[in-house]
Amino acid sequence: MSWSGFKKTLNRTGTTLMQKTGQIERTVDTEFQDEQVKFKNFEKECQALQKESKAYLDAMRAMTAAQTRLAEHIEAFYGAADKTSEGAMASHAYKASVSELDAVIQRELDAPYRTTIMEPVGKMNAYFPIVNEQISKRNKKLLDYDAARSKLRKVTEKPPEDPSKLPKAQQEFEDAKDVFELMNQQLIDEIPQLLDLRVPFFDPSFEAMIRMQCKFAEEGYEKLGGVQRYFADNVRDDYAAGQLDAQVEGVLQEMKELSICGAS
Amino acid sequence: MSWSGFKKTLNRTGTTLMQKTGQIERTVDTEFQDEQVKFKNFEKECQALQKESKAYLDAMRAMTAAQTRLAEHIEAFYGAADKTSEGAMASHAYKASVSELDAVIQRELDAPYRTTIMEPVGKMNAYFPIVNEQISKRNKKLLDYDAARSKLRKVTEKPPEDPSKLPKAQQEFEDAKDVFELMNQQLIDEIPQLLDLRVPFFDPSFEAMIRMQCKFAEEGYEKLGGVQRYFADNVRDDYAAGQLDAQVEGVLQEMKELSICGAS
Repeated sequence: MSWSGFKKTLNRTGTTLMQKTGQIERTVDTEFQDEQVKFKNFEKECQALQKESKAYLDAMRAMTAAQTRLAEHIEAFYGAADKTSEGAMASHAYKASVSELDAVIQRELDAPYRTTIMEPVGKMNAYFPIVNEQISKRNKKLLDYDAARSKLRKVTEKPPEDPSKLPKAQQEFEDAKDVFELMNQQLIDEIPQLLDLRVPFFDPSFEAMIRMQCKFAEEGYEKLGGVQRYFADNVRDDYAAGQLDAQVEGVLQEMKELSICGAS
Repeated sequence: MSWSGFKKTLNRTGTTLMQKTGQIERTVDTEFQDEQVKFKNFEKECQALQKESKAYLDAMRAMTAAQTRLAEHIEAFYGAADKTSEGAMASHAYKASVSELDAVIQRELDAPYRTTIMEPVGKMNAYFPIVNEQISKRNKKLLDYDAARSKLRKVTEKPPEDPSKLPKAQQEFEDAKDVFELMNQQLIDEIPQLLDLRVPFFDPSFEAMIRMQCKFAEEGYEKLGGVQRYFADNVRDDYAAGQLDAQVEGVLQEMKELSICGAS
């Protein structure tokens, strides 16, 4: 920080303190405050959007990766038993399906998701520090403006011995007012413009996101649907009737009867 | 460890050392070793299956949770802009769809997945420590058997002064042989039986898993498919032609032209 920058910071800290004790009047601009609240909400939403869209991509990848590894284990299972059994054939078809699905997702979803969603959200988020910097500058200029007004009032109420001090304070006040009002008005005018741009900006991203989620589900359904034909039609009803539970329990019972599994 | 347990451990450590230096012959049973290899592979596969099926469930939950949160953010976005716009209506329909999807998954997939997959895998995995304990016992009995045979050989080759030592060593050898062979044969007979049970045991689980993955994709497709009608038919073609990229770039350009976004 330069010497003049340091002096400015010190003066502004003094102004803030004197505003807190009521010695200097604080300018409150509700029009600006309203826009700032909207802007801060938008910033929060954009950051959440970035985090959640990343979480979705990660979960989509994790799910297909887990599916692929599961398919490999299941195939190894049946492969070690009877390779010509219905189960072995189903597990083979299942593995082929999830591999295809994994390839489709990598080819048609992973990169497009990054291009149409992650990147635009990232670009939007890059603007927040810039606007926040402008808001921070505006707040500093407001302190200068409040300090200059207070100084002018004192000089006016209690004219000093040096007559040149009044026009100097008047000029300083006018300058501080102009600088603050320019920056303040710019934010009041442009924050709504920025916020209005969010809909045309994000429209393609949101649409892409919904379409890709549909595509993901559609591909999964198409690819896995083919595997279902390996199962007898009655299995679903058997499930409902609890007969498959009985099958599992029956096998567990057989296991328990083996001496090596602890039968006494 | 009891005193006799401690003595046994000490004796077996001695036997192992003497086998390493070639002083005591080591019995090698390839029939048992083959079964042990198969059993160890099965154990590894079952443990991987448990890990991966948990990873799949976690990823499925993470994905629908991320989807639901994304839908909330997108709705908040459009809600803060124009609530009657096409985008706002699409985002509303999207949120309703993913909420329904989340409910369906919790109701129809989460609990059944645990019941039909996680729990049976867990039950199977609970048997490995028991069988491993049997294998460990068999290995200890084998050391005792090898030690008894070595002792008997020594007593036979170099008859001791005390004539009662030979029949005693003979008896000890016979006992150790019987104990080892019983345990060894039990493992050789029963490991294949246990492995044969894996197919009827896991069949219902694998089938349930494939069906549930289909169901997950099907529900997603059905629920999200309805949202697609909110989008104009030409959007997909616009994507292909790169026109939506142009839209995003155009909006970015407008943002750059705002003074608060750093335009100079």
